[in-house]
Amino acid sequence: MSVNTFGHLFRFTTWGESHGPALGATIDGCPPGVALDPAIIQHWLDKRRPGQNRNTTQRNEPDAVEILSGVYEGRTTGTPIQLMIRNTDQRSKDYGDILNTFRPGHADITYHQKYGLRDPRGGGRSSARETAARVAAGGVARAALGVVAPQVTVTGYMVQMGDRRIDRSRLDMDQIARNDFWCPDAVAAAEWEDYLTWLRKDDHNSVGAIIEVVASGVPAGIGAPIYAKLDTDLAAAMMSINAVKGVEIGDGMAVAALTGRDNADEIAMGSDDPVYSSNHAGGILGGISTGQDVVVRFAVKPTSSILSPRRSITMDGQPTEVITKGRHDPCVGIRAVPVGEAMMACVILDHILLDRGQTGGVRGRIG
Amino acid sequence: MSVNTFGHLFRFTTWGESHGPALGATIDGCPPGVALDPAIIQHWLDKRRPGQNRNTTQRNEPDAVEILSGVYEGRTTGTPIQLMIRNTDQRSKDYGDILNTFRPGHADITYHQKYGLRDPRGGGRSSARETAARVAAGGVARAALGVVAPQVTVTGYMVQMGDRRIDRSRLDMDQIARNDFWCPDAVAAAEWEDYLTWLRKDDHNSVGAIIEVVASGVPAGIGAPIYAKLDTDLAAAMMSINAVKGVEIGDGMAVAALTGRDNADEIAMGSDDPVYSSNHAGGILGGISTGQDVVVRFAVKPTSSILSPRRSITMDGQPTEVITKGRHDPCVGIRAVPVGEAMMACVILDHILLDRGQTGGVRGRIG
Amino acid sequence: MSVNTFGHLFRFTTWGESHGPALGATIDGCPPGVALDPAIIQHWLDKRRPGQNRNTTQRNEPDAVEILSGVYEGRTTGTPIQLMIRNTDQRSKDYGDILNTFRPGHADITYHQKYGLRDPRGGGRSSARETAARVAAGGVARAALGVVAPQVTVTGYMVQMGDRRIDRSRLDMDQIARNDFWCPDAVAAAEWEDYLTWLRKDDHNSVGAIIEVVASGVPAGIGAPIYAKLDTDLAAAMMSINAVKGVEIGDGMAVAALTGRDNADEIAMGSDDPVYSSNHAGGILGGISTGQDVVVRFAVKPTSSILSPRRSITMDGQPTEVITKGRHDPCVGIRAVPVGEAMMACVILDHILLDRGQTGGVRGRIG
Amino acid sequence: MSVNTFGHLFRFTTWGESHGPALGATIDGCPPGVALDPAIIQHWLDKRRPGQNRNTTQRNEPDAVEILSGVYEGRTTGTPIQLMIRNTDQRSKDYGDILNTFRPGHADITYHQKYGLRDPRGGGRSSARETAARVAAGGVARAALGVVAPQVTVTGYMVQMGDRRIDRSRLDMDQIARNDFWCPDAVAAAEWEDYLTWLRKDDHNSVGAIIEVVASGVPAGIGAPIYAKLDTDLAAAMMSINAVKGVEIGDGMAVAALTGRDNADEIAMGSDDPVYSSNHAGGILGGISTGQDVVVRFAVKPTSSILSPRRSITMDGQPTEVITKGRHDPCVGIRAVPVGEAMMACVILDHILLDRGQTGGVRGRIG
Repeated sequence: MSVNTFGHLFRFTTWGESHGPALGATIDGCPPGVALDPAIIQHWLDKRRPGQNRNTTQRNEPDAVEILSGVYEGRTTGTPIQLMIRNTDQRSKDYGDILNTFRPGHADITYHQKYGLRDPRGGGRSSARETAARVAAGGVARAALGVVAPQVTVTGYMVQMGDRRIDRSRLDMDQIARNDFWCPDAVAAAEWEDYLTWLRKDDHNSVGAIIEVVASGVPAGIGAPIYAKLDTDLAAAMMSINAVKGVEIGDGMAVAALTGRDNADEIAMGSDDPVYSSNHAGGILGGISTGQDVVVRFAVKPTSSILSPRRSITMDGQPTEVITKGRHDPCVGIRAVPVGEAMMACVILDHILLDRGQTGGVRGRIG
Repeated sequence: MSVNTFGHLFRFTTWGESHGPALGATIDGCPPGVALDPAIIQHWLDKRRPGQNRNTTQRNEPDAVEILSGVYEGRTTGTPIQLMIRNTDQRSKDYGDILNTFRPGHADITYHQKYGLRDPRGGGRSSARETAARVAAGGVARAALGVVAPQVTVTGYMVQMGDRRIDRSRLDMDQIARNDFWCPDAVAAAEWEDYLTWLRKDDHNSVGAIIEVVASGVPAGIGAPIYAKLDTDLAAAMMSINAVKGVEIGDGMAVAALTGRDNADEIAMGSDDPVYSSNHAGGILGGISTGQDVVVRFAVKPTSSILSPRRSITMDGQPTEVITKGRHDPCVGIRAVPVGEAMMACVILDHILLDRGQTGGVRGRIG
Repeated sequence: MSVNTFGHLFRFTTWGESHGPALGATIDGCPPGVALDPAIIQHWLDKRRPGQNRNTTQRNEPDAVEILSGVYEGRTTGTPIQLMIRNTDQRSKDYGDILNTFRPGHADITYHQKYGLRDPRGGGRSSARETAARVAAGGVARAALGVVAPQVTVTGYMVQMGDRRIDRSRLDMDQIARNDFWCPDAVAAAEWEDYLTWLRKDDHNSVGAIIEVVASGVPAGIGAPIYAKLDTDLAAAMMSINAVKGVEIGDGMAVAALTGRDNADEIAMGSDDPVYSSNHAGGILGGISTGQDVVVRFAVKPTSSILSPRRSITMDGQPTEVITKGRHDPCVGIRAVPVGEAMMACVILDHILLDRGQTGGVRGRIG
Repeated sequence: MSVNTFGHLFRFTTWGESHGPALGATIDGCPPGVALDPAIIQHWLDKRRPGQNRNTTQRNEPDAVEILSGVYEGRTTGTPIQLMIRNTDQRSKDYGDILNTFRPGHADITYHQKYGLRDPRGGGRSSARETAARVAAGGVARAALGVVAPQVTVTGYMVQMGDRRIDRSRLDMDQIARNDFWCPDAVAAAEWEDYLTWLRKDDHNSVGAIIEVVASGVPAGIGAPIYAKLDTDLAAAMMSINAVKGVEIGDGMAVAALTGRDNADEIAMGSDDPVYSSNHAGGILGGISTGQDVVVRFAVKPTSSILSPRRSITMDGQPTEVITKGRHDPCVGIRAVPVGEAMMACVILDHILLDRGQTGGVRGRIG
């Protein structure tokens, strides 16, 4: 019922509007004894922060996180952790001209229809700024994973911008941090750079993207069928991110074109654990992890705020045209990469804890 | 936390294994005063039931539903509704040879790893048979929608089988009921028929599919941001269905290749309500319905149980080959159509009720 | 939100009306590998069953439980367990004269006001018959405790009937099973017998009672502050039982009259664990178990259905008098004893599982 | 699962420790359009605030609340409301000598056992200071009730201190605000004053209390059987407050001594609605409101922190004696009055919203 809350045992509630005094995450269910301080969380927030390069909005806020509760002498106590980020750079005048206008592709109109009123400043609650709170929560989840399941790693990257895909034969995880796009393909990154510059400067347009997030080292046997399957929760996690319109696990939508023979991930016995010939399943069978990489992808629509005029209506129902000046990413998908990572970290931690409560975390033997 | 439960205010819990005594759905939160009897639910179960044509499994059970509670003199009372379907045709001997073998693509191995034991008969809890309970719950949701929001219709159909897509220029909803595939394109349906026959008889193989479900007449303003968005809940609903590996809202994964100009659904004022020039968004902005058709698609992987041998291991970790005889659909996607419809009906009803609790169900005025 | 569901990780949903086809409990979250068959549950149902002596209603049903799911070859699988009890002895004609009348002290009027309609047969959903489902769920909880925490015992007994209390100096747990009242004081039991016979036969009246339930062997450290404290959940558990109007932990309402010096349970170090000089706290501090006996008491109001006439109104708002013939316990508190035990068992199991998910179940060291 | 969260549709999560940087409440589910500013909430916080008279702790903090989200131009937007109260007067040195000692009657020992570590400063999370967050949430609930059900009033008062009860024949609600004890009986208040002064100064002791909270104007028909009954939720609400050991609805524990004839609240028809001859039931039948006053009472144990020495152990398991200096209320029950009011306001609002979601809020007709 907690409509602003995500998770089963590791739960976070995000709160705050784009241009209100602050935003943050209330985390309930972090295990006790985890080393935590603001710097640990700040590391991940800095990855997401706008204003870092030409391709993300020029809103230049430090996004400094404060830990208001749940930590004593540098360790979590098992009580709720309150993370707060003050909004310092609010320039609400930028948005003044759209107070009475519904921007196409934005939630202005639906928030108005549902609630009868809305906070129009910067999109209010529906702004992508909410995702900063998720990234902060994800930082806590990663810290807790470091104790609970230290072998788990979570890595996100962009695999498609517009109709330009990476070439998986050039996949190099070391490239991810070396370009503005979290792109694991150096050649693609260079092309995207040119394309995005043109889009922004010349075409006054924006473009969509696809992000892939991989969790490695996830123990086999986590996931809670039927309605809290690991993939179900990942689908919900990613679809809840602003502007996401599609989510895939493993081969995703492409499974439609596969045959059963092709799709079978054949099983052999490794030294200790089963090994698989392939990973069409994305590391999940029947909602439960296989021990392979957990692979999720999601598509982010192009930024709706563009400098090109689009037809719309005012609150009075009068026709108008909307051009959104303000500061906007031409490809919001870029900033969605650390957000997707954060959601993956939260889901994996949550399911490890849930599995402990369900089964004690003991695994069935094979071999 | 209810890992076998779906929904916020209209909640259903499914229970039961493929070859146990019975399966069913415990529904909590159906509004009072809704006309309901077994025939109303049976209508939808009969749509899903296997054994109806050559392309679905030959398991020939009546799937007769009993209403054990929550209904008095033909009307719901607001108390829990228990729906039970007895398993009558269990032929468990068909599965005897796979008691100690993990079938590739199935949840045998992950259930074993998580729980340490499993009901192997027909896949136990992870069998697609669980979806009969969803369809029954969906029948109740549709009955309740008939009172709460009678203008809402929910229609599912198959848009792709293998790499064969429908031609949307031939889309004809009247065709859906006229072929074995819930296919709205008569030409495609004929081709699929031949293809599937060949796959099953000659190729001993199976194939994936994509299903689309559309809800029309959904009032603007339902959906509960941020973590119970209408699209978030639809993604979870569809991803929780057996064998589903991808979910799309509106343009789905294809938004990645769109630009902001192309993706904008421009707004004009209609006689009473806003009207949109297009529906790339699939009827949802910021997690809240726009009043347009709500459009979701999901991909179903090919049936893992095939007559072609696949390599696997036994519970002892020994290598083996698996050929699944039994009764199996060459394209489980076919039977997923009424399941997707059922989930859509449940989500829409649930969000209408939730919105009433949140806002009183009153809409903000436009014009 | 699950208004007919109780519990966090061990959750049960009860369903069914007094005179409908069946009632039962859908249990989600029972750990896998627990030995379970109908006889294990039936044992506890038989304790609660009416028709056993002169002081409980003469409704003579076997209350035979069927396990419809979640158990394979005598062991739980970790999937939902459906327990069904058919209603066989429904004699609804007994209730025919009260279809249009609201019985004082019953939920007839409030169900009508809330839902607009109600199942009037035997009180429908608000009948104490619902508690059979709880007792069945409690039987499963006890079986699971036998695996998860075998040292835990749960014992309920009646400590007051009307204004007649037991004498705690005569407390003898062996007496509980030797009288019709679960009374641990043989002298009191004999007096209650006479009193109740007079009440029923001569006074046409009924009377209230207080039940005490003690859980021994509960590990220190379970409970989930702040809003799922062990005592919070016990208070909810007991108050949800029909006719309960008060719940106490440890010294309960009497703490008001104590001073801080008197109320302090002083602590010393035992051979392994802390030991306490007294147990005013009822085994719970700050919502978390101390390792002492967990002690809860609850008061059950006198049966509202009596042979003495009470003034009321009809559905049309006309004045009338109500005399309830039918079959009714003169002291419903008697049957509440196994119900209270069942709820205690469920809460203790649930919190042990929850604690495993929260902390891994590892305890902080003392000494 | 949200163990630090309370409520169904109107939900609040409290966070923060006694001596951490801040504490507060994250509220999800407040209806949109409610007039709200800090002063509205501050009004209720000031009622609870310590340091107001000689009988509550001398901790003199302003407890100034900040609204960080969910309000735009003085009205709630339907999005999460974050309320933060900075801790300004922390004097942690007062607690230095008990870092390694478990105080009898406190949660020090159980938090240590559960979590392996704890924030010892002022009791950390288990401090009664947490209740400030509840009072803030209650202030929001009252503001929302002003829109949703303006006829509802919530009034709390103390009816017993130690073994001294009020005389209900002298009950005068106007007295409540005129003494330090929220006592509706001026004579009793004067006696309590003397008693408490003696306890504190001469006896170095503390004492328990009983608080009663009444909600008037509650519409008939709210409450959600079976496991979210109005009384079930009130029992949980009150038992979750620090130091509470018993909860009663209507006649409470005293129903045990009543007979069915005495306990019956007889029903007659008023001008529009049913009227009752008495209110033994405390305004609730079958978990649903009758329209009468909803009456709940709870007992608060004596403050565990007293100047008289009590035997205990250290973290090393060594015997010690504890004398708690610091600042402590001799009767914490006093400050529990506004907390009980806040919880009542939250429960009533929550159930009105929930009922709207369940039934549309339409009532069954009588007469």
